[in-house]
Amino acid sequence: METINTRKTIRKYTNKDVSEPLLRALLEKAERTPTMGNLQLYSVVITRDAEKKAQLAPAHFNQPMVEGAPVVLTFCADFRRTTLWAENRKATPGYDNFLSFLNAATDALLYCQTFCNLAEEEGLGTCFLGTTIYNPKAIIDVLQLPRLVMPVATITLGWPDENPPLVDRLPIDSIIHNETYNDYTPDRINAFYTPKEQLPENKHFVEINNKETLAQVFTDLRYTKAANETISKELLEVLKGQW
Amino acid sequence: METINTRKTIRKYTNKDVSEPLLRALLEKAERTPTMGNLQLYSVVITRDAEKKAQLAPAHFNQPMVEGAPVVLTFCADFRRTTLWAENRKATPGYDNFLSFLNAATDALLYCQTFCNLAEEEGLGTCFLGTTIYNPKAIIDVLQLPRLVMPVATITLGWPDENPPLVDRLPIDSIIHNETYNDYTPDRINAFYTPKEQLPENKHFVEINNKETLAQVFTDLRYTKAANETISKELLEVLKGQW
Repeated sequence: METINTRKTIRKYTNKDVSEPLLRALLEKAERTPTMGNLQLYSVVITRDAEKKAQLAPAHFNQPMVEGAPVVLTFCADFRRTTLWAENRKATPGYDNFLSFLNAATDALLYCQTFCNLAEEEGLGTCFLGTTIYNPKAIIDVLQLPRLVMPVATITLGWPDENPPLVDRLPIDSIIHNETYNDYTPDRINAFYTPKEQLPENKHFVEINNKETLAQVFTDLRYTKAANETISKELLEVLKGQW
Repeated sequence: METINTRKTIRKYTNKDVSEPLLRALLEKAERTPTMGNLQLYSVVITRDAEKKAQLAPAHFNQPMVEGAPVVLTFCADFRRTTLWAENRKATPGYDNFLSFLNAATDALLYCQTFCNLAEEEGLGTCFLGTTIYNPKAIIDVLQLPRLVMPVATITLGWPDENPPLVDRLPIDSIIHNETYNDYTPDRINAFYTPKEQLPENKHFVEINNKETLAQVFTDLRYTKAANETISKELLEVLKGQW
């Protein structure tokens, strides 16, 4: 897994297709990922059809990767298959609740990440689209997802046609806590975030957005309180209808 | 990542410790995992102290791995660090909502899975404890997690002292859907689940639990509707208080 050390999000892909046998093999290998009670509470919808990609694109804020990638994969929390299995086996399932959604979402996300690690080892490029939970209703409609199936992650997949620079990460000491949570004092925040703020690309990012600090780009433009609260409400409503 | 092909959950560990430099290196490597807006919305609490493990054990239904492993790692959805950063940078954060929780939980779970993939490549054994979201309050108390920090996954980690058989998985065709969701007819359910049901270990599992079908072991004993609904309510309450 040496590829992880230089892992980059890939948003541009060559015209070369991702073959069906390779895709299947990678999805199958990823099944070794741990899963609750060995129930495998996930499904993957494979989108290769150009029309379907065009229908999915708006749900992902028309990011060009969706239509530009040979393959789009939507990873879904799925308690439907298990529920139907139970119903076909004189068993009474009870999985239409929040805990079970989170169980299935966990399974789906772990599975998705093993898949990505495997795909990247093969030289494939991926882009994780966090937008999946911003517009789940549109995705549900396009992919015709029934109840107890909720999209939680999308990745675009293809052979890389770009080699972007490695992006920065926070120092590992900002992530780790020994025994109990070591809360962040202003001094620790400075130590952990100043190197990131001083990077030329981040200074530029602040400048072109007419902001004073990098954090403001996130709070005022990218992930605002107002948008988060509106989308939270919509997401909870969709979840209630879907799950 | 050839290790994934024979990957097994490891619940028994040798006395050999997991060295601090190795653990740090693996946690650091895993930081290359994709993360929302490069915010890294996760934290990891490392438990090595025997007393702390003993305190965590009941939250994990006293599964012996918790006290038996040299290291217990609790992966948390964490919007606190980002929030404090924003507050220290004249920015107004708005991340105390459901969407932001799910954003951070996603980041934490993806990060956790890359860590496991890497650890297993080193020969380490892991056990994923889905119990984390069953008793989050106890974990929050023991690890002293502040608001906007929610435990979403726990793994026990150590050098394997057992070599259990590979467990079965569903055929990949039961997971994959082409273009749209291909719903499960009784025939497809039979095709996908009969091989699992016919395995000697699963027949035995049904027998010792005095059930008629394998599915009933799950619906009547392991993950019951009543328990799921009670725990869902508690989980949502904890989440409301914590996030």
